[in-house]
Amino acid sequence: MAEQCVFCSITRGELPSETVLRDPIAMVIRDIVPRARTHLLVIPFEHVTGIEEAHEFERLLLGHLVVMAARAASAEGIDESGYRVVVNQGPDSGQEVDHLHVHVLGGNRLGAMG
Amino acid sequence: MAEQCVFCSITRGELPSETVLRDPIAMVIRDIVPRARTHLLVIPFEHVTGIEEAHEFERLLLGHLVVMAARAASAEGIDESGYRVVVNQGPDSGQEVDHLHVHVLGGNRLGAMG
Repeated sequence: MAEQCVFCSITRGELPSETVLRDPIAMVIRDIVPRARTHLLVIPFEHVTGIEEAHEFERLLLGHLVVMAARAASAEGIDESGYRVVVNQGPDSGQEVDHLHVHVLGGNRLGAMG
Repeated sequence: MAEQCVFCSITRGELPSETVLRDPIAMVIRDIVPRARTHLLVIPFEHVTGIEEAHEFERLLLGHLVVMAARAASAEGIDESGYRVVVNQGPDSGQEVDHLHVHVLGGNRLGAMG
């Protein structure tokens, strides 16, 4: 938990969000600035700053977040049409919040990856 | 292993590739049609067709592939500048090979995710 982290505020319920899925490890919410017809964020309750930190303490977390991404895609009905799972890490990627999160994009034909 | 799968052919060494990293579970190669200055593919030796199948049999695999993506980013010197980890799943995503793989993109400022 980090006091200044917007995702920690969301997972604590201090900031509103539209929750799609939730389990003991992470929650899936809608991105408020969607980059596709469906744009979800899988956010772990643990304040992990990124992939590097995550693989130091629990690589299973990363697998779980991807599995939740797939579950959320099914819940949204985009598992057959297809979806993209994205983790942005560091400046060149456009990562905006220093709390590990997994994007799920779909609901329309997606463009280039980068 | 699938006879007609191009990634199985690569992991078996029947098709050439430029290998960046290799461990008992997966290998990391350069994409032959790079979408960024650095564009790597993390390919498990096991022929898993996608996220859905993977989470049925071994979710740890997914976490491991992301960890390998991070390792490969370090090996390529793009861990500080940043990189994007992408898994395309199904038609709308532009997935081209039905063998689970993780893209690593970086080396320049990346554009939109979708």
